[in-house]
Amino acid sequence: MKLVEPIQDLYDEEFSHCYGCGRLNDEGYHLKTYLEGEITISKFIPKDYHIAVEGFVYGGLLASLIDCHGTGSASIFYARESGLEIKMGNAPRFVTGNLNVNYIKPTPLQKELKIVGKLIEITNRKVITKIDVIVEGVITVTGEVTAILLPDNFGKVIFHRK
Amino acid sequence: MKLVEPIQDLYDEEFSHCYGCGRLNDEGYHLKTYLEGEITISKFIPKDYHIAVEGFVYGGLLASLIDCHGTGSASIFYARESGLEIKMGNAPRFVTGNLNVNYIKPTPLQKELKIVGKLIEITNRKVITKIDVIVEGVITVTGEVTAILLPDNFGKVIFHRK
Repeated sequence: MKLVEPIQDLYDEEFSHCYGCGRLNDEGYHLKTYLEGEITISKFIPKDYHIAVEGFVYGGLLASLIDCHGTGSASIFYARESGLEIKMGNAPRFVTGNLNVNYIKPTPLQKELKIVGKLIEITNRKVITKIDVIVEGVITVTGEVTAILLPDNFGKVIFHRK
Repeated sequence: MKLVEPIQDLYDEEFSHCYGCGRLNDEGYHLKTYLEGEITISKFIPKDYHIAVEGFVYGGLLASLIDCHGTGSASIFYARESGLEIKMGNAPRFVTGNLNVNYIKPTPLQKELKIVGKLIEITNRKVITKIDVIVEGVITVTGEVTAILLPDNFGKVIFHRK
């Protein structure tokens, strides 16, 4: 499968307000997940105030990046495995069921973070990915994201929204 | 142990810049973790832009709140178990080793989140807590945080800072 755009730019408008990766959220991080061969990649430079202790990136931000890269990667891998041709507005939207993050070593601030996703397992409605955060070639944080496909009738059935 | 102030207001200045809970971070969330009997409690109201999909809180924010409440709770429980009298500037500072979050159901926006911590396990340098996010009496997210005590010589020994 070829995919030029980041997956987050191909979600339906309704699902594009996420603080971590929604193109329609003016305040958010705007994470962009690309397919490159067999893996997925995002890049992100934290702000100076995204600090844990002096010189190092806040763990909650790192968890957030892993979360959004995981759901984005799930969308890409799910489309690929099911033979779906992704077009504007039809990218499958996943939400996180479980997020498990291991902080291996401190992640330095003022560097570009490369976030890499690999497919671990895929079923009918669930995609598990391994997500690494890499700084200058070194993995500082690694996570696993279990992402769940939103049903088409999301809202009405699941959440009883009007 | 009695503790009137939130633990984050008793960290040394050097460790008070965290985006999630540092009192000296102007941009951050300023989470405040209190001891109440045997448990720890924080409260937080997300902003409207902390959205995942319409009406529901962004999972990365929820992971962040669990993270900071976990390290704050670790500090409190560690002080209690070791008989340390916490005063301004001497609260033990923990960082996260592992963060494992289960999203049980969507967390609605525009509500106060109550974040509750319980001690699971404590060793010489490690504290494991169970952290629940509760909205109007319902647990929507539950997590486990493995927090690691920073050594006194943090910076020089561990990170080779000048």
